[in-house]
Amino acid sequence: MTELSASAALMVGAALAEITYTYDTRDVILYALGVGAPVDVTDQDELRFVYELSSIGFRVLPTFPTVFPNAMIHGLIQGELPGGLKFNPMMLVHGEQRLALKAPLPAAATITCKPVISAVYDKGSGMLLVVDVPCYDQKGQEIALSQSSMFIRGLGGYGGDRGPSSTSIPLPERAPDAAVSEKTLPQQALIFRLSGDINPLHADPMMAAFGGFDRPILHGLSTFGYAGRAVLKHFCENDPTRFKSIKARFAGHVFPGETLITEMWREANEVIFQTRVAERGTVVLNQAVVELQG
Amino acid sequence: MTELSASAALMVGAALAEITYTYDTRDVILYALGVGAPVDVTDQDELRFVYELSSIGFRVLPTFPTVFPNAMIHGLIQGELPGGLKFNPMMLVHGEQRLALKAPLPAAATITCKPVISAVYDKGSGMLLVVDVPCYDQKGQEIALSQSSMFIRGLGGYGGDRGPSSTSIPLPERAPDAAVSEKTLPQQALIFRLSGDINPLHADPMMAAFGGFDRPILHGLSTFGYAGRAVLKHFCENDPTRFKSIKARFAGHVFPGETLITEMWREANEVIFQTRVAERGTVVLNQAVVELQG
Repeated sequence: MTELSASAALMVGAALAEITYTYDTRDVILYALGVGAPVDVTDQDELRFVYELSSIGFRVLPTFPTVFPNAMIHGLIQGELPGGLKFNPMMLVHGEQRLALKAPLPAAATITCKPVISAVYDKGSGMLLVVDVPCYDQKGQEIALSQSSMFIRGLGGYGGDRGPSSTSIPLPERAPDAAVSEKTLPQQALIFRLSGDINPLHADPMMAAFGGFDRPILHGLSTFGYAGRAVLKHFCENDPTRFKSIKARFAGHVFPGETLITEMWREANEVIFQTRVAERGTVVLNQAVVELQG
Repeated sequence: MTELSASAALMVGAALAEITYTYDTRDVILYALGVGAPVDVTDQDELRFVYELSSIGFRVLPTFPTVFPNAMIHGLIQGELPGGLKFNPMMLVHGEQRLALKAPLPAAATITCKPVISAVYDKGSGMLLVVDVPCYDQKGQEIALSQSSMFIRGLGGYGGDRGPSSTSIPLPERAPDAAVSEKTLPQQALIFRLSGDINPLHADPMMAAFGGFDRPILHGLSTFGYAGRAVLKHFCENDPTRFKSIKARFAGHVFPGETLITEMWREANEVIFQTRVAERGTVVLNQAVVELQG
């Protein structure tokens, strides 16, 4: 048994440190700005996500809970996994993200996250860690369940379990029912990182180079938030309570300043979507679905 | 004696509520993003104002202390002055700002501000309040002295003291020694307001209309920060310890998304500057000087 496979076996089922995340409207707004809201600063319906005094009522974007467990990154960018396995933190990339909403999101709260490593897979080119993160409010009610798959490049090929092949979600063959194109800001990652993911890969050109990128890349969860906004606007009339869950695979990186095109297809109570970078044609989110409240 | 002149007389010398402002690197960065840093996200020298892990050392923009007393606005936008004088908060505009730096700015601190109304003038078209705000660190050391002149349109003409005519600072007749042109973001005011000035005039189209503006305007202190950055870069090699004081008059409004042109003239230990909106030609900051450390 190699060191890697022994480490992987030890990690499955391991609980990571509990995270307490206290937020208020300022944090909610900063997140919304980090995922591109509002496109039109004169549109009251979009302003309500970034303006706590909105006369039509402040709203919290449904993808906001993805930042609740962001403090996990503080441990991971030290380059050490539970059990002591060391790795180069610049080789860490976000593989997939799922989020299920369990209760309406308050404008301010103290959240407790209880992350558990639910699976560790050997994908050949790297190791995939699946982390389940139930998030609870002050009363102990589960408010959201986040699931992040973290991929560590270079740490695979130890003969471990490859894990289930993911079930492919085919795109409908018709033209999209809706499409949104939004240009990110050159400063987008600098804004988004203030929501808690301070990985230098997203800010420091030198550190991005160590990770093999020409320049710092946008956080996958920022792109994820852009896509969530697109679905929310076109299929939920911007009402977060109609948004039940979202999942997507991070298929490629985005450089801050690039334009994101999200194409959407409604299928019964689901919206299948895909996000591409206009400038390079690359698909950056796929295997992606929003489930609407029935 | 009219009600207005009685109110004005009562206010002179009045201490406003002490303000405690606790900040950390995230607040410093958010401020820097709110005043347009960085123009070039790949320039380490600019990144250090927005990236707390900078390998060449994190720095605090010297104009940051202007946000320390921002909580004053919470009282002012209620439309009530010390002594009980009521006014329409949408008629409140920032007239002039001065800031003197007394000690190097830490990356995190708890600051106590002790604002005092040092003068009240009748400018005919409105009332001008001058508020002196010494700002102290945890040890009681004065770290900065801010002075804000707040203008309340429509509240003048009560036959009160007009105050001293301000000494005009003529622009040198030669071409500027340096000039900087920077386009603000459409979201600029939404970012800047997270530094504490939550006046709806800067976010809400409806409230801006009540104030007589076609759409929400950028905070004067954001424009002020852009100009400060321009001087810092061209005459201080981006070193905040070389920046001693700054003052400017808010001569016109800026709409978020417009381009700011700051022209600068070095005269001995001072840099005289002026900021214009490129799209409309309007001067927005004048009577403006940065004093350099000797």
